[in-house]
Amino acid sequence: MTFAQRLQRLVATRESQIVLGLDPDPARLWAQAHERVAAAGPPAQRAASAVRAHCAAMIDAAGPACVAVKPQLACFERLGADGWAALAATVEHAHEAGLLVIADGKRGDIDVSAAAYAQALVGHTPTPFGDVPGLGADAFTANPLLGVDTLTPLVDGARSADAAIFVLVRTSNPGAADVEDLELHDGERVWERLARIVAQLAGPGDGLSEIAAVVGATAPEHVARMRELMPRSPFLLPGIGAQGGRVEDLAPAFAVGRAGGLISASRSIARAHESAGGSPADAARAEAERLRAMAWSLG
Amino acid sequence: MTFAQRLQRLVATRESQIVLGLDPDPARLWAQAHERVAAAGPPAQRAASAVRAHCAAMIDAAGPACVAVKPQLACFERLGADGWAALAATVEHAHEAGLLVIADGKRGDIDVSAAAYAQALVGHTPTPFGDVPGLGADAFTANPLLGVDTLTPLVDGARSADAAIFVLVRTSNPGAADVEDLELHDGERVWERLARIVAQLAGPGDGLSEIAAVVGATAPEHVARMRELMPRSPFLLPGIGAQGGRVEDLAPAFAVGRAGGLISASRSIARAHESAGGSPADAARAEAERLRAMAWSLG
Repeated sequence: MTFAQRLQRLVATRESQIVLGLDPDPARLWAQAHERVAAAGPPAQRAASAVRAHCAAMIDAAGPACVAVKPQLACFERLGADGWAALAATVEHAHEAGLLVIADGKRGDIDVSAAAYAQALVGHTPTPFGDVPGLGADAFTANPLLGVDTLTPLVDGARSADAAIFVLVRTSNPGAADVEDLELHDGERVWERLARIVAQLAGPGDGLSEIAAVVGATAPEHVARMRELMPRSPFLLPGIGAQGGRVEDLAPAFAVGRAGGLISASRSIARAHESAGGSPADAARAEAERLRAMAWSLG
Repeated sequence: MTFAQRLQRLVATRESQIVLGLDPDPARLWAQAHERVAAAGPPAQRAASAVRAHCAAMIDAAGPACVAVKPQLACFERLGADGWAALAATVEHAHEAGLLVIADGKRGDIDVSAAAYAQALVGHTPTPFGDVPGLGADAFTANPLLGVDTLTPLVDGARSADAAIFVLVRTSNPGAADVEDLELHDGERVWERLARIVAQLAGPGDGLSEIAAVVGATAPEHVARMRELMPRSPFLLPGIGAQGGRVEDLAPAFAVGRAGGLISASRSIARAHESAGGSPADAARAEAERLRAMAWSLG
């Protein structure tokens, strides 16, 4: 099955469009993540072990209300090789829980380097010593600044793995105004041009494409225009909660169907207990379920 | 010493502005890289071991004519945790050879994620289990599409580690025309706006900044304008050789001093033996020395 097919089935079955962001900070893990960490060993190894346990607990608690997880690669990379092993284990745990995995690394590079990123995230690497599997993600985020010829190897890699690529079009941070919102000579904004590139890569046709877009939930006034420019692309909508975006502003994303708008939430779920009280797992479960029900009611 | 000071000292001592790109493809390693690989074991582990040996041999052969290495992170990430360990070993080997390390990952993300990348590449991560050191690079490449507030945590991370950040301004691939070359409403190009952001981050003052820029050598007509817009920034100039750029077109980069223009070459050194004959190491050594002498003669 293609990514779009897997996604649509999951969205329908779970009645959810929620993506669980996994941005583990070793200094702010759930208490239970510390329980099984070895009493001694190199800090990177012990921290990675705790991060792995934290992500597994997040998935166990909030996962049933979600369709995918979105691990933030930076949070794992800072723990080195041990962190990458924790990332691989987290991908596996998410798959066992029936969730899709969107590797959030916002990669972008030229020709053979872009192809290498596709191998790392959704593909595999042929070597004289045997085939080396990549991370096994179902999708990954990508940065389009370097142009179409840097996206093509990523798109090809995603397509041959039945995976998806989420291209950054308009991000959720205030600084998105600095470059993405610049006005071009013909009156369009840079993000509109990026949206046209996404649409061109997706091509004509019906049905949800595997060429998807990241569209910040903090600029809801743009969502309808985004849908117009990219009629076939699933949207990943970060920025709900901690960043100020509101689920109820995102309805235009779902014009293409419920699977056309995926709502990403991370800190608001991981830290729900800080405001709601109770155990981290119970608060996360309740917050993910609250977001799920609110988004589903828009469809 | 700051990055700029270390760089200037190395450039003067070695009479070189050459950066050795390390983009190891496990299927195209130097024959000698296979010699010490274990006869059995998981493919990722064996391939990573060969990649590590290949990079060490490249550094031993071509390093003396260079001031830095530039490992392409994608090429290591595709081998998973073993690949990351090979990357860490390569960084260590480069440092032992007296070279600076520019981690080429073209990272860019919002707030805490950007800070995590800085921790991963040039900083360290505090954890309840002790401090986890990052890769220990001297500099890293970054993608500015997401705006100034996503560069600031990277800049802060670089500054507090006496490291440098190389911001993509105009890349060396043909697709750079798609977004970077777009004309804005005021007649400037997107890359000119990116250059202004770099200059703003570098701030006023004399002397080489730790806020550097990636300026493709394949668009030499822009180099003088780049230097005008970013008077204090070292330029990393990829695209020589395999991509068609010519060393002799880059003289304007050196207006700020010899350390103001770093010429990156990878495949033309790693594969020099394919056209020049001889052993890969001898051919690489000769090609790196040829580039070094040619660039130095421009200064």
